Amino acid sequence: MNIDYRNIELRSGFWKQMQKLNSETAINAVWDRFDESGRISAFRFDWDGNENKKPHVYWDSDVFKWMEGACRIMSKEERPDLEEKVNMLIDLIEKKRADDGYFNIYFSVCEPGKRFTDRNMHELYCAGHMMEAAAAHYYATGSDRFIKIAADYADCIEKVFVTEGIAEFETPGHQEIELALIKLYKITGEEHYLKLSEHFLKRRAVNSKDKPIDGNIYHAQDNRPVEEIDSAVGHAVRCLYMLCGMADCAVLTGNKKMFEACERTYKDIVNSKMYITGGVGATRFSEAFSMPYDLPNETAYAETCAAIGLMMFADRMCKYTRDARYADTVERAMYNGMCSGISLSGDAFFYENPLEINLGSHRRAAVKDGHVKLAITQRQKVFLCSCCPPNINRVIPVIGEYIYDVEGRTGYINQFADSVLKAGGIEITQKTDYPWDGKVTITAKGLDKLYIRIPSWCRHFSINKDYTVCSGYAVVEDNAEETVFEMEIKPILISSCNKVTQNACKAALMRGPLVYCAESVDNCENLYSLILTDTNEAEESYSEMFRGILIRLNGLKIPESDELYSEAKANYEKTKIRFIPYYGFANRGESNMLVWLNYKGGMPS
Amino acid sequence: MNIDYRNIELRSGFWKQMQKLNSETAINAVWDRFDESGRISAFRFDWDGNENKKPHVYWDSDVFKWMEGACRIMSKEERPDLEEKVNMLIDLIEKKRADDGYFNIYFSVCEPGKRFTDRNMHELYCAGHMMEAAAAHYYATGSDRFIKIAADYADCIEKVFVTEGIAEFETPGHQEIELALIKLYKITGEEHYLKLSEHFLKRRAVNSKDKPIDGNIYHAQDNRPVEEIDSAVGHAVRCLYMLCGMADCAVLTGNKKMFEACERTYKDIVNSKMYITGGVGATRFSEAFSMPYDLPNETAYAETCAAIGLMMFADRMCKYTRDARYADTVERAMYNGMCSGISLSGDAFFYENPLEINLGSHRRAAVKDGHVKLAITQRQKVFLCSCCPPNINRVIPVIGEYIYDVEGRTGYINQFADSVLKAGGIEITQKTDYPWDGKVTITAKGLDKLYIRIPSWCRHFSINKDYTVCSGYAVVEDNAEETVFEMEIKPILISSCNKVTQNACKAALMRGPLVYCAESVDNCENLYSLILTDTNEAEESYSEMFRGILIRLNGLKIPESDELYSEAKANYEKTKIRFIPYYGFANRGESNMLVWLNYKGGMPS
Repeated sequence: MNIDYRNIELRSGFWKQMQKLNSETAINAVWDRFDESGRISAFRFDWDGNENKKPHVYWDSDVFKWMEGACRIMSKEERPDLEEKVNMLIDLIEKKRADDGYFNIYFSVCEPGKRFTDRNMHELYCAGHMMEAAAAHYYATGSDRFIKIAADYADCIEKVFVTEGIAEFETPGHQEIELALIKLYKITGEEHYLKLSEHFLKRRAVNSKDKPIDGNIYHAQDNRPVEEIDSAVGHAVRCLYMLCGMADCAVLTGNKKMFEACERTYKDIVNSKMYITGGVGATRFSEAFSMPYDLPNETAYAETCAAIGLMMFADRMCKYTRDARYADTVERAMYNGMCSGISLSGDAFFYENPLEINLGSHRRAAVKDGHVKLAITQRQKVFLCSCCPPNINRVIPVIGEYIYDVEGRTGYINQFADSVLKAGGIEITQKTDYPWDGKVTITAKGLDKLYIRIPSWCRHFSINKDYTVCSGYAVVEDNAEETVFEMEIKPILISSCNKVTQNACKAALMRGPLVYCAESVDNCENLYSLILTDTNEAEESYSEMFRGILIRLNGLKIPESDELYSEAKANYEKTKIRFIPYYGFANRGESNMLVWLNYKGGMPS
Repeated sequence: MNIDYRNIELRSGFWKQMQKLNSETAINAVWDRFDESGRISAFRFDWDGNENKKPHVYWDSDVFKWMEGACRIMSKEERPDLEEKVNMLIDLIEKKRADDGYFNIYFSVCEPGKRFTDRNMHELYCAGHMMEAAAAHYYATGSDRFIKIAADYADCIEKVFVTEGIAEFETPGHQEIELALIKLYKITGEEHYLKLSEHFLKRRAVNSKDKPIDGNIYHAQDNRPVEEIDSAVGHAVRCLYMLCGMADCAVLTGNKKMFEACERTYKDIVNSKMYITGGVGATRFSEAFSMPYDLPNETAYAETCAAIGLMMFADRMCKYTRDARYADTVERAMYNGMCSGISLSGDAFFYENPLEINLGSHRRAAVKDGHVKLAITQRQKVFLCSCCPPNINRVIPVIGEYIYDVEGRTGYINQFADSVLKAGGIEITQKTDYPWDGKVTITAKGLDKLYIRIPSWCRHFSINKDYTVCSGYAVVEDNAEETVFEMEIKPILISSCNKVTQNACKAALMRGPLVYCAESVDNCENLYSLILTDTNEAEESYSEMFRGILIRLNGLKIPESDELYSEAKANYEKTKIRFIPYYGFANRGESNMLVWLNYKGGMPS
C-alpha cells in the first residue's frame, strides 16, 4: 500500500510543534523574503536589465520548493492564502513557459537562446524541483494542472537530452531531476520518466561530453559511474540527491549493482563523514564531503539541505531494506542537523550548521585577508542562495512519512511521535512525549505484525508483550491490546572515534536522539575551560522557550591564568555545565557554543 | 665597552655544533641554491628578459644576508672560498651601482626609471640588508670598501627621501633599513644615518603619502605612530625588525616614548602572541601576528625569520634594560623556533614552523579547492622566497653576542654555552654541557660583578657562593674562584593559558629551554590518541642524530574504535610516549607531529 503524509496526523509534541511553526510562521516568512528579493516577480519574466535584480539560476528552484511546502500544508489545512499564491505562480508558469514546455526564468529572461548549454547553471535542477512541486500540488489538490505542465517540461527535456541528444551536456551539474522524475513516473505511470531518470544516472561519469564543474571531477560526482561508487565525494547535496534517485531507480528497475553502490556509500557516510548531529558535507569548499574522519567543528559546513538530503536518502534505504539502522540516521539528522536550520521563532534560518562557535575566531576572521571563512553566528531571514529555508518548508509537513510505513499487513514505526496513521483499514497510533520521554503507547489495527524501531542510542528498553528482534526492530505480532514500548532516555556522554582528531579527549552530551550543546550565555565566556566528567547527578528541566528539556551536569573548570605558559597542574575547580538541545543554539544573541567539550572520564567531578 | 661576536669563542656543545653545521654545510648549501636559482648571476645585471628567470624584488636581500653570514664566518675562520665569493659580489656591486650610489637589481634591470615609486617593492629593505652585509664585511676584513658603497647608497636614499623628498613614498613597506642605518651610524660615526633611521620610524603612519600595503593598514604597521603602539600587528618580520630599529633609535636618541612603545609591544607579544617555541606570526595571511591568544598549532606560520626577529628584538631589550626576562625569550626562540628552521643535516630549511603536522590534513589540502594551505612537512633546499635560510646563515655565527654582554666592569651571562669571552682585559669562561646538563662552571677575570641569568623555566638552582638577585640575574661579586651555577633541568609538562583554545586540556613537554614534540615515527600513527599524565619515571637517552637528549614518558592511549560515535569511556591503555626536541622534527621523512598533546593531569598513568 502506498501511504504518504496525507495518511498521517501529528497530534502533539515535538513534530506537531514544528509543523505548527512551519505552517504559521516559516512558510510565510520565506514567502515574504522571496517576494522582497524579487524571486516571485521574476516569474513574470519582466526583468528590467538591472544587474542588481538579475534573476539567479537557482531562483526557480527556491520558489518551487516553497510551492511544494505550501501544497503539503494546503493538503492538511484550509489555507486560501497559500492556495492563492500557488495558483498565481502556476498561472504565471503556464503563461510564460515556452511552447515546447520549457520553463526557466534565467534562461528565458537573461540568456535566451542559451538553454541547455551550460551544465553548471542549475537548469535541470530547477526542472526537478518544478516536478516535485507539481507532484505535491497534485496530491494536495487532486488537480492535474501543474503536474501536466511539469510533464510537458519533462517531455521537452527527454527530447533534448535523449531523443535528439542536442543538449551541450548529458547529465545535470546539480542532481535533483533524477528523484523528481521518479515522482512524476509514480503519478503518471509513464515509464519513460523512470527511464529518463535512469538515463541521467547511468550517463554520469561515462560520457565524454560533460566537463567536470570547476574542473573538479568530484564536485558533481563525475569521478565514477554510479554503479561503482563506494564513497561520498563532492558537493554533499548533489551527492545525496543523486543517492536518493539511485536508490529509487535501483529498486524500481531491479538494479542490484546500483543498490549496492547506495549501501556502500551510505556506510562510508555514517562511518566516517557524518557529524554527531547528522550534518554532512564538512567543508565549505565546494560545500563538499571531506576526507574520512575530517569533521572539524568550527568550520563545519553541514548545510541544512544536506541534513535533509541525508534524511531523504536514509529513509529510502530504511524502507527498501527494512533495516532500522538507517532510521537511526534519519532520526539523528531530523532532530539535530535539520532542526538547527530554523530558529525557535520560525522565521530565520541557518544554511551552515557549525558544531562550535568561537566569537574570537569571528573577530579574527573580520580582519582583512584574515582567516578561514566561518559560518554566520545568527540565523538570518534570507540568503542570496536560499535553498535551505524552503527545504525546511517542504520537509516538515511530510515528517509523517518518516514516522510510519506499511507494507501489506505489516506496519513499521520508524520514528516516534504522538500521531496516528490511517490507511485502508489500517490504523496505528502512538501516544508519547518523545523525545523528552521514552514511553510510547501504541495501538495497531488491521495489522499482522508491527515493527518498532529500537534506536541504536537506546541501551535499555521494555515492551509489555512478547516480541522478536529483526534488523533493529522489535516485532510485535499480538496487536490486540496496546503495546507499551518504553525506552530509557537519559543523558549520555558520547565520544567519537579517535581518528576524528578534533574530538580526541572530548565528549558530547546526548539525551535520546538529541545532541546537546553548551553556550556561553548559560556558562562562562570561555567554554574551552570546561571539562566534562560524567552524567551522575545530571539535572533536567523543561524550557518553554526551547520546547524541550535542558540539562545541567557537574563538571570541572580549568582556572583562569594570565601566564601564557606555565607548569601544567590538575587543579580544576568544580562547576556546573549547562546544556541546551543543539537545535536551539544561537537563539539568544551571539554566544560561544560547543558540542564537543573537554572530557576527563575517570576524574572525580 | 663594545663587545661583539668576534670577542667570543664557542668551544663545544650545542651552539658550537650549530656553528660548525652553518659554516661547513649551510652556508655552502644556500650559496649553491642561490647560484642555481639565478640570484648570484643577477648581480651581473644581464637578465635576458626570460620571465621565468626574472630577478625578484627581494633577491638582493637574500644574497646580502648570505654575504653577512659569510663575512661573519670569515672573521673567525680562514675561508678563501667564501672570501672569493664575497669579493666577486662586491666587485659586481661596485661596477653595477648607479653613479649616485643606488643599487637594486630589480629596478635597474626590470623596471629602470621606476626607482622609489612603489613602497611594496622591498627597495629600502634590500638597501638595509646591503648595509648589514657591508657592516659584517667591515668587521670581518677591516676593509672599508663595501661599507663605503653602502654609505654611498644610504646618502642617495637620504637625498631622495629627506633632502629632496622626491620619492613616491615616505617609509619602507618592509622595515629593515631602520636598524641597518644604525649599524652604519655606529661604524661611520655619522649622525645623519641615525637621523635617517629615526626619520623612517617617525614618519610611519603619520604621513599622507604612504598607501597601506594591500590596503591593509596593519600589514606594514601603518596603523599607529611608532611612539604610540602597544600591540604587535601585521607582518611579523616587518614588525620585529621595526621594533629592533625603534629600540636602538630610542636608546641612541634618548626617546623615552619610543622605548616605552617597545616595552608595551614586547609584552603584548610574549603574553599573548608567541608560541611556546618562540615562534611568532601565527597566521600565513600576511605572514602576520593574529589576535591575542590565537595560536593555532597546525596552521602556525611562525616563520623562521620572525623567530630570529624576536631574538634580535628581545636581546636588544635585555641589553637596554638589563632585565633577564627578555633573555628568556631569546632563549626560547633560539633553541626552538629558530633551530627548527634548519635540518639536522644543515642543508634544508623551513620557512614556516608548525607545532603540529597531521598528514591527513595535507592529503585533504591536496584535494582541489580543498582547505587551508598548510606548511610543508619536509625542509626544503630552496624556496622561491628564500629569506629564512640566509637569515640562519647570518645569525648563527653571531650567537656569541646573545650569550655575553659587558658594561664597564660588569659582565652579563645571558645565555649558557661552553665558551669564552675575551675583551680588553676581561675574560669570562663557561664550561658546560648546557642545555643537556644544567651545570655551568664560570670563571671571570677583570670584572667587579657578574650577572648570571636565572632562566624563568628553572625552578631550582644553586650557586657555590654568595649572590644577590636582580632583575632575574644572580649577581656574583666575588669572582676570584670559579662560580658553579647549577640549574635543575628535568622534563616538565607545560600548559598554556586557557584563552588559547587550541591547547585547552593539553600539555607540552619541555626540558630546560627546549620544547619537545612527539612524532609518529617514534609513536603511533594517531598522536591524538595519546594522553600525557605526568613526568614521573621519565627516561632520557642521548641521541647522536639529534645531537641531544630524547625523552620517554609514561602515558595513556585511547583505544582504537571503528564506531564513529559511541558512549564515552575512560578505558585508556598504558603506553610509552617518545619525544624528540622540537628543533629536530621532520628529519626522518614525513610524520605526524604534535607539540601539544592531550593531558589528563591527575590520572594514574
